[in-house]
Parts: sequence; C-alpha cells; structure tokens
Amino acid sequence: MPNKLPVGILGATGIVGQRFIQMLEHHPWFEVAWLAASDRSEGRPYAEAARWRLKTNIPARIANMNVSPASRAGAPKIIFAALDAAIARELEPQFAASGCAVVSNSSALRMQADVPLVIPEVNGDHISLIETQSWRRSSGGFAVTNPNCSAIGLVIALAPLHRHFQLEAVMAVTMQAVSGAGYPGVASLDILGNVIPYIKNEEEKMEEETQKLLGTLNGGKVVPAPFAMSAQCNRVAVEDGHTESVSVRLKKKAKPEELIAAWNDFKAEPQQLRLPSAPDRPVIYMTASDRPQPRFDCDLGGGMATAVGRLRPCNVLDWKFTVLSHNTIRGAAGAALLNAELLKAKGYLG
Amino acid sequence: MPNKLPVGILGATGIVGQRFIQMLEHHPWFEVAWLAASDRSEGRPYAEAARWRLKTNIPARIANMNVSPASRAGAPKIIFAALDAAIARELEPQFAASGCAVVSNSSALRMQADVPLVIPEVNGDHISLIETQSWRRSSGGFAVTNPNCSAIGLVIALAPLHRHFQLEAVMAVTMQAVSGAGYPGVASLDILGNVIPYIKNEEEKMEEETQKLLGTLNGGKVVPAPFAMSAQCNRVAVEDGHTESVSVRLKKKAKPEELIAAWNDFKAEPQQLRLPSAPDRPVIYMTASDRPQPRFDCDLGGGMATAVGRLRPCNVLDWKFTVLSHNTIRGAAGAALLNAELLKAKGYLG
Amino acid sequence: MPNKLPVGILGATGIVGQRFIQMLEHHPWFEVAWLAASDRSEGRPYAEAARWRLKTNIPARIANMNVSPASRAGAPKIIFAALDAAIARELEPQFAASGCAVVSNSSALRMQADVPLVIPEVNGDHISLIETQSWRRSSGGFAVTNPNCSAIGLVIALAPLHRHFQLEAVMAVTMQAVSGAGYPGVASLDILGNVIPYIKNEEEKMEEETQKLLGTLNGGKVVPAPFAMSAQCNRVAVEDGHTESVSVRLKKKAKPEELIAAWNDFKAEPQQLRLPSAPDRPVIYMTASDRPQPRFDCDLGGGMATAVGRLRPCNVLDWKFTVLSHNTIRGAAGAALLNAELLKAKGYLG
Amino acid sequence: MPNKLPVGILGATGIVGQRFIQMLEHHPWFEVAWLAASDRSEGRPYAEAARWRLKTNIPARIANMNVSPASRAGAPKIIFAALDAAIARELEPQFAASGCAVVSNSSALRMQADVPLVIPEVNGDHISLIETQSWRRSSGGFAVTNPNCSAIGLVIALAPLHRHFQLEAVMAVTMQAVSGAGYPGVASLDILGNVIPYIKNEEEKMEEETQKLLGTLNGGKVVPAPFAMSAQCNRVAVEDGHTESVSVRLKKKAKPEELIAAWNDFKAEPQQLRLPSAPDRPVIYMTASDRPQPRFDCDLGGGMATAVGRLRPCNVLDWKFTVLSHNTIRGAAGAALLNAELLKAKGYLG
Repeated sequence: MPNKLPVGILGATGIVGQRFIQMLEHHPWFEVAWLAASDRSEGRPYAEAARWRLKTNIPARIANMNVSPASRAGAPKIIFAALDAAIARELEPQFAASGCAVVSNSSALRMQADVPLVIPEVNGDHISLIETQSWRRSSGGFAVTNPNCSAIGLVIALAPLHRHFQLEAVMAVTMQAVSGAGYPGVASLDILGNVIPYIKNEEEKMEEETQKLLGTLNGGKVVPAPFAMSAQCNRVAVEDGHTESVSVRLKKKAKPEELIAAWNDFKAEPQQLRLPSAPDRPVIYMTASDRPQPRFDCDLGGGMATAVGRLRPCNVLDWKFTVLSHNTIRGAAGAALLNAELLKAKGYLG
Repeated sequence: MPNKLPVGILGATGIVGQRFIQMLEHHPWFEVAWLAASDRSEGRPYAEAARWRLKTNIPARIANMNVSPASRAGAPKIIFAALDAAIARELEPQFAASGCAVVSNSSALRMQADVPLVIPEVNGDHISLIETQSWRRSSGGFAVTNPNCSAIGLVIALAPLHRHFQLEAVMAVTMQAVSGAGYPGVASLDILGNVIPYIKNEEEKMEEETQKLLGTLNGGKVVPAPFAMSAQCNRVAVEDGHTESVSVRLKKKAKPEELIAAWNDFKAEPQQLRLPSAPDRPVIYMTASDRPQPRFDCDLGGGMATAVGRLRPCNVLDWKFTVLSHNTIRGAAGAALLNAELLKAKGYLG
Repeated sequence: MPNKLPVGILGATGIVGQRFIQMLEHHPWFEVAWLAASDRSEGRPYAEAARWRLKTNIPARIANMNVSPASRAGAPKIIFAALDAAIARELEPQFAASGCAVVSNSSALRMQADVPLVIPEVNGDHISLIETQSWRRSSGGFAVTNPNCSAIGLVIALAPLHRHFQLEAVMAVTMQAVSGAGYPGVASLDILGNVIPYIKNEEEKMEEETQKLLGTLNGGKVVPAPFAMSAQCNRVAVEDGHTESVSVRLKKKAKPEELIAAWNDFKAEPQQLRLPSAPDRPVIYMTASDRPQPRFDCDLGGGMATAVGRLRPCNVLDWKFTVLSHNTIRGAAGAALLNAELLKAKGYLG
Repeated sequence: MPNKLPVGILGATGIVGQRFIQMLEHHPWFEVAWLAASDRSEGRPYAEAARWRLKTNIPARIANMNVSPASRAGAPKIIFAALDAAIARELEPQFAASGCAVVSNSSALRMQADVPLVIPEVNGDHISLIETQSWRRSSGGFAVTNPNCSAIGLVIALAPLHRHFQLEAVMAVTMQAVSGAGYPGVASLDILGNVIPYIKNEEEKMEEETQKLLGTLNGGKVVPAPFAMSAQCNRVAVEDGHTESVSVRLKKKAKPEELIAAWNDFKAEPQQLRLPSAPDRPVIYMTASDRPQPRFDCDLGGGMATAVGRLRPCNVLDWKFTVLSHNTIRGAAGAALLNAELLKAKGYLG
C-alpha cells in the first residue's frame, strides 16, 4: 500500500480507538502505522493490550502491532485522537505543536475559538480556522475536532432544517447507548432494567457544540447560531445508537412534506467530493410509524447516516421528531475519519 | 372481615388486575369478592387462569377463587376495572347503568365530559361530575377514571408547580417500562438492546388528560388547563417505572428552591384524610445528581410517590427536571384504588 | 436470473422465514419465487404482512411480492418450510405428496423413520432415506429436515469428537436466545433480568435428534447413536445465539490438543463440494479463556460456523467445553438452505 | 440498643458490605458499630463513600457514620468481612490474631484446613474447627467462612439428597447474576444481550467448597465428601440470583416424590434454634414447570431460601433439576450473618 498516508491513533485501545482501527482496515487513503495508548499498554501487542469489543475481528496486521507510548517520537504526521478529555487537553496541543495534523474526537479543544469543530456535511468551511492556529504558523501542525456523539446526529438532522427554515428553538432529550461511555464505562449493575437520567457534562456539550456547528464564520471567528437550545441526556440499556426525541421551532413556517424533503434531499460537500466514508444520504427519513430504532437502524449508511422519523406537530414548539445516530461510528471514529478525508480533499494533509 | 366492602375486579388476570389483587390483599376497607376476565378464563381458578407476573405470591384466598364471566350477575357494587379500552367502552357503561360504582383504569371513558378523570391529590373536586351522569340518576351507579400511566406521574409533579407558579407550557419525553403494555405486551425481540420511539395513542392521551386533570370545574364542566402541552413517548427495556424528561414554562418566575419546596411540601386531601393508600408525600425531590432512576426509585412510598430530580434551568422554556412514577402502582391499580378510597371518604360508596 | 431454481417459502413472515429471505437474496442457485403464510397474511405485499425483525432491509423485490395462501397451487417445486409444528404436520406431507421437495426446519417430521434429519457436515448420507418415502415413489416429492436450533450447534461440535474418539455420554445445558422462540415469542416481561429454566419439548428434541443425527444408516434405517444424552434447556436475555455448556465422556482417551485438532481440522462434504452456504470451517475453536460469547461470536462464518471454547477436564465425565451457534442462521434457515444445496449437488432437485 | 453486640464491617462499601448493612438494620442481636473500607473511603461519611446499589435506603444512622481505616484499632470484636480475596488474605488473619471473631465472606481462608467453611443448615458441626486455630489459642480470636455465592445454593439443595440418598456425582452449570461480581464489576458492554461462559476461579471454588461443605469431621479435620463434582460457570444479564442446572447420581435409588420430600422437609439447626436470619424452610420445591426464575423467586424466604424445581430423570446421571439462590443475600451477606448467629447461639461470641 505504498500510496496510502500513514496515520497514528492516540487512545487506540478504547472503544473509539477500536472503531478507528475497524474503519481504517480497508481505507483507500489512510493506513494505520502507529498505535498509542496509556502506559499500561505500552510495548504490548495490540491484541493483548486492547479488550476488543467489536463483532469483527482485530485486523491481523494490527493485532501484532506493538502499542507505542503516547509521545511524538515515531508518530506519523496524521493523528486520530480518541483520548479522555483530561489527557487530550495535554497531549493534543503537543502533537499539533510538533507539526501533526491532529484529528480529534475528544472534547478538550472543541470549544477553543481557533479550533474548528466540524461536521463535513454541515460546516466544512469552518476548517479554515486552522489558519488562525499558532501551531499552524509555527510548525505546520493543527487540530480539528468533531462534536460529541450526542450532538452529531442531532446537528446533521437540524442542518437542512436550519438552512431552509431557520431554527428558532431546539429541545432534545437523548436516550444514549452505553458504548458512548467507553469501556468499561457503565456498570451493568447501574443500567440493567434502568434509565440513568444524567451524563456528566453532556448537556452542556450538546448545547454549546450545536450552536458552534450551526454558527457562521465571520472575520475568522465562529458566531454561534442564535437559536435557543436545551438538552436533557439519559443513558439507556442499548449497546450502540443514540436515540433523541427532538422538538423545534422554525422561523419560516413549513409543511411536513417540505421538512421531509429537506432531509431526504440533503447532500453536501462530502457527497459531492465522494469522500470514502461519506454516506450517500446523510439523513434518511423513515416512514414507518415506530422508527428509527437503535437495534435495527443504527447501521444505516454503514453507521454514517442519521435516521429521522415520526415527524409530527408539536403543541409547544412547531415540530417534533425522532433522531438516531450510531454513536461510535458517525458519532466518534467515523466523524473524525470524515473530517480527515475532507482535510485531505482540501489539501491540508500534504 | 365483616366490615369490609366487597369489590370486584374486571380484567383480573392482566398485569393491572394482578396489581389490584396485590394491593387489596391487606386493605383495611375493601375485600376482593369477585374476579372477572375474558371468556377464556371463565370458570377456572384464578391461579390457573392468570399468568402471575409479580414477585409476591398470589394470595391463597384469591388463588382458589373462580373467575366469573364479565357480566353484572353476581358482581358486587364496587368494581375496579382494568380492561382493554375496546372492551371497557362496552362493559363499563353496562356496569354503571346497573348501579355499580365503576372505578376504572381504562382509557375508554376518561375524556367523556361527565366522567371524572381524577388524581385525588390534584383534582379530587372533579368527583362531583358524578352527579351529572345519567347512570347516577337512573340506577345510582357511576364511573370514575384515573389517567394513563404516563400522565399520572407527570401531573402529580406538575400540580404543585401549577398551583404556585402557573404553567404556561409543558414538554415531556417519556421512557416507559414494558409493564405499561400489559402481558404479553412488548416482545423481547422488539425491546432488548432497543428503544421504541412510539406507543400507539399514548402522546394524545398524555396531552389531553394532563389538561383535563389540571383543568377547573366550572358550571358542572371541566375547563381544560390552558397551557400548551406536548408529549413524546418512548418504550425502553425497563420492567417497571416510567421516567420522563420534562421542561416547563411558568407564568410566575421562581427560584429553584421555591420549586423544590413546592414539591416537597405538597400535601392534599388524600394525605389529610389519611387514605390508606395515600403516600405520606406525593412528591419526593431527590437531590442526588443522577436520580430518580426506575430500578432504584420506583417503589418510593410503596410505589405511590412520584420522584422528581435534576431541576435545572432550561434554555428554551424555564425549567427542566426528571420525573419517575411506578406505572402499574401509582400509574394504574394504585391510582384507581386511591380514587375508590376518596370516593368512600366522600360517601359515594354507601 | 434465468438459471436459478425457483423456490417457495412456507411460513415466510416468521423469524425463520425472514432469515430464508435474507440468506436467499444473493443466492447463486436459488431464487425466491413464492411466499406463503397464514391466512391473515394472504394477498398482502410481504413488507406489510411481515413484521421484519432483521437489521438488513427487506430485499425490494420481496417487499412487493404478494403473500400466497399456503396451498400447493402456484407453488414451485422446491419449498423451504418454516412452519409451526402443528401446521407443518399437516402441510408438509401435502406438499411432498404433490411432488415438491420439502426442505423443512420444522420439528413435525424430524423423527419419522423415513425422513432424513440432516446436517450436511455430519450425516449427509442419511439423505438416501428419501428413496424410502412413499411420496417419492408416488409423485417424486420428498421431505428432508434439519434439527432443532439447540441441537445443531451441539451436534456439529460433537461430530468430530464422535468420529475420532467415540462418544459414550453427553450432557448439555443450554442458554438460548429469544429469537429461537419466534416472534412475538418471549414476552419482555418474562425475560428482562431473568432466566427461564424451561422450553417446552426442547430437551426431548435435543436428546432424540442428537442420537438420530449421529446414528448410522443400516438397511435403509437410522440406528440412533448409542451414547447416553441428557439436555437441560434455559432461555436467557440474548437476541441471537445459543450458548451451551457441554460435558462428554469418550471411549477413546485423548489429549486436549487432539480434541482441538479434531474440531479445527473438521471438514466434510459441504466444504469439499464448496456448497455456497457452507462455512470454510464448520467448527472454530476459540482460544481466549472467555469465549465464545453470543453477542460477539455468533456471526462467525456468516453465522454458519459453530464456535467452541473453554475445553478443560471434567471431574464427572471426561471433558467439558462451551459451544455457540447462531440459532436462526446455522440453527434454522441456514441449516435448511445447506440441506437444499446438498440435495442439489446430489441431483435431487432436478 | 444496650443489649446488642457491636459488630464491624470490613469492606463496607461494596455490594456485599451494603447487604450486611441492610440485613443488620433491624437485627435483634447485632448492631453495626464500625465500618471500614479501602483508603479511598477513609474518613468520609458512609453515604458519600459508598455507591449504594440497593432499593432500600441507607439506614440514616449508617449514612452519617464515618468510614474507618481497615485496621484493628477501634474495631469491635465481631467483624463481618466482605473483602477481595487478596486483601482478605492479609487482613483477616490480622484481625483474628488480635482477638476478633472474623466472620468472612471472602474466599481467602475457606480452604485452609483449620478454618471452618460453614452453612449452618449443612455442616454447623464444622464450627468446632475453631478450636484448632492458633489464633484461638493465642488471642481468643478466630475465623469462620461461608462458601462462594455459586456454591451455597447448590450445597443447600444437595445436602438433603446427600443425607438421604448419598451423592455419587454432581454436575452443575451456573447462570450467575452480575451482582456476584461486585461493583462496578461486569461492564454493561460485556453483558447486555450476552452470556459470558467464564468466571475466574469460580469453577474451582464451587468444586472444592462443595466437597468440603458436605465432608465429615474426623479427628479435627474435614474429610471432603468423596463424590465427583464438576462445575461450569456462566455470567448472564440478571441483576440478582444465581440459577443452576444440576444433575446428580445417587447411591440409593429413589423416587421423585422422595427427593421432593427430602427438600421440602429439610430442617436443621438454624430452624430448630430459630436463628433470626434462618428461613423457615431452607429449600422450597416449586411445582410450576418453568420455575424457579431469578427475577421472580430469588427473594423467597427473604432471600435466604433456596428454590428448587424441574426435577426429572437424567439420561446420563440419575436426576436433573434447577436450583436458584439469591447470591448477595443467601450467597454472601446472609450466609455470614447466619454463621454469626450460629456462633452466638453456640456461645462463641461471648
């Protein structure tokens, strides 16, 4: 594979790190060349260091690759980062400062003013914020982030509505899968037969990230979208797939068929550029009265599509509907991967 | 038990019928004297006819009682009804017309103008609608109903807020237990590792029942509460306990501690009358950041209390919080039982 | 697809019927030409009649195909049958008598002396029993069956042991997925957070089918394998994949590595003939100490491989190990499909 | 409570520690006077230090009690120990050596020759091993243990069979609840929709403990019961209650009604002495064809009874049946508590 770009994965043993490895296995542009994780894993073959939690096998080449220390030495110039926020806050700037393209799934830098928080279908233009980063000027390195797993499906569903009808208010109540909490993550004693109506910092992230993602670039800065946004986050006994009950108020009044058309017709740069991980249709409106459902629908578009259903009037705002998105594919590893593909298409990866 | 009033149960073999039997086992005022169910069950001992799904045993006296046909002959004058809506629509008027006090958990008559839809802590005064029923005038019989299992916890949590601060808008997203669908109800293949974002007719019931319950009696009619109300209903893999993420806008601005005090201080007629099934505190505000949770909290107050938690500001309306209520106790059998106790205390049961 | 053989599915709307449709979608030899189900479904498009419970979509061509009545008129000559036993007992002989090749997953005819009960890797030679069937002589039709979903994985794991070391006794305790009970099947109120230590008739089927499958053909009759066989069957909250804790006593003493080699080297006619649905390796021995597990391993070999793990000595018999098999693929639709492929390869399908 | 004996709990914050607190709340003989846990918890009020996972509330008195360091200073003379084996191996001898009665649920000392491993209904006489302990002679202290949660229900079910009919071989396959692994214990990503066919060291413990418990005291030593014993242990998605599929061979042939009578009539010293935590009936045989089930039956006898069901012939051994026992009550805290009650009744607690 002489023409593929070598990439590294920071946090390679976690649930999102595993998804990176799975999604990169047959990738046409990128090839995993370096795996790093916490001290405990260093120097061990990946298959031993990771507690693999996916249904597909660990790719043989990766299984035998040794886990490196999480430091710049030996790392390739493109880094996918799937670190806990506290560690990311320290490491990601180091890698960017040393010349790496850091494509991060962590929350550490997402709200930093000069760091693009990007969903390629929604605000690919925000990538130009890279040019305002001091890392970029000093070393050529930079950092780009994708949103929280609970924000991304929501924002993809909101984007065509916002474009056509302008959002005035959004309320979202989530029912989030346990894989969103990593591994070991949620204890079975906490979630079997239960709902946990609290996920630390999640509601704050959903609210501010949604507004940054749908915001506009103005003079090298992102002006957050001005609509009101309120989130309530719950954990449920689901393995993969975040389901959200959403209500919106729109400035421009619309008929339900217009909203559905806005979703079904939604295409953007990743589709036009035919990025390898881009779904044909970023949003799929399901007409069955009881869909989408995480167990049956979260793999639509290879886990990269957002499913929407149950559009109906809301007595308080204007419309309500259900959104479903795969939280570790579109909501994490796939999100970063699509960001990297957009960066490559735009010439940022050399 | 010579002084206890004999009662009958229509729909005795279902999940709610079982809860009636469980809750009536040691009741100080009422005694089960008659059990009726569908044709298939007639003439068989209850223990054979019912697929008992509760952790406590079938009371021995009930186990051997024969199941009667669902007709007036032989039935006592006080009837608890736990029938499917379609059957209830036919049978409940028959029993009321023949002189019975029908205390119903079914949805059939709830929205009928002359039938009280009652939560004793909230709108016990609506019971006087009985006097407008033609059954009452002709035979002395009447019908009283309690709300849907998803509405009742919500309305108990809303009532003190409405009283003190006046509701202007309410949004509720539910995560409902499978026992709310009866038995066999939800197939395991549908709900394991899944969320079903749809429960037939449930959102409509929640919206209209909430407004009737918090409405005011005016000239012998209930004027629905005028606030906007929107519900989204989901089924989750939980055995018992409906959890709801709620947002409200209030006319009178308030501090969080005032809302919490309104909940914790809430007492009403059932508490003052010391009705046997009334919880000491209808609403319990839980201060832990991740409560209430159905597996741990749905039995508060013997399943008759409503748990509230996570009060925090809402960017779209004013406040958001989580509500939890046991769906087959406070949300069904216990609701009807408390209605019957209020009826007795008010002299309606002779 | 001019060269494909048209096939029909009896019981097309159930869980196993759905698997037939899914597995036949891109089949190189067979093409679904006819779907039949109960009266309730007749005349409706399949997509409406079936409550589709698989993650892949209904193939478009099938979605619009009308469901036919379950009678011979209009049916093709190759019939996959996924009927309840009671209905199968009536219909399967009718179809066979009228000249059809009935490849059945039902239990109705499995133990009938002249009906082959076949796992192609284990006892493909039993297919010759067809020639003793009166249907065969009168109309050319015949019936072939595959075993119960709980027996098939076990027998595939036992076959290489029996061949090399001769079984003297087998004990199997199952932990079976809910999809094995069809749809709606197991109520969620019965299985959430629970184990049900009973599946009607299942232990009897496992015991007698295992002995017939591993039996020998002698003078046109199957002599059941003479080892002692005991089964205990439990239902657990798993969607797909039957897990079994097995102990065996062997006549010929063996080392663990010999048993593992027997499993890993096991190949049979389906592999030699390269039947389209045959897994490369019918048995895969997993070396990790805690595998196989249904959620991670039941799709091995496209759901057609049997996973074995945890081989260790048994203090009562000789060896114990864990077996896992996909119950609706290898255990049902895939079993029948592989039988049909073997029949075609042997010239029985014209 | 001047007459109650003060007791301490080592490992008070874990799942078993919590059960100790719950079961001791209204105990007539013992009163919690001291709570100890790991360094992380020291000095904090119990309600803060423990992640309480039971449905009943933390007793108010306990909630405010400070957690002490796990050292002898300040500890009462009766210690319930619910420690991890590694820590127990170090601490339990220290406490015993310093004069404490250590009533332990840990596995550390269970198989030590001079430490009684006791189920009061089964082998209360083994308590006399205390007199052979060097701690006893030097300081008056001693240690008594109860078996593993998977062994205890099994052994209670086996004891009356062994007494009447003499066991020759036992095979047990377990389906164990997640609470048996403590908290956080089993990750939800590992167990949702899954079975894990492996629990570290569990099979070894079940096998050797069963033989020690049913062994006989001879010259101050326990001679293990001579029957063959084989265990296979699985984890399932159940909160509480270990279910076991068991087969036995008996020396003395018996009729099924004799086995059932042996279970139902089983009474022993704890029942005769009316120990406060002793169930009226240690074994309850359930006649329904599909019982016992953990969700419905694990609280029988306040969680202290063992449920047995489904007795039927076994083709390999003689009989098979299902056993269910509450793993954190009868299988852990309740086991130790009953041991302590027996010790008190026999005068060992001063």
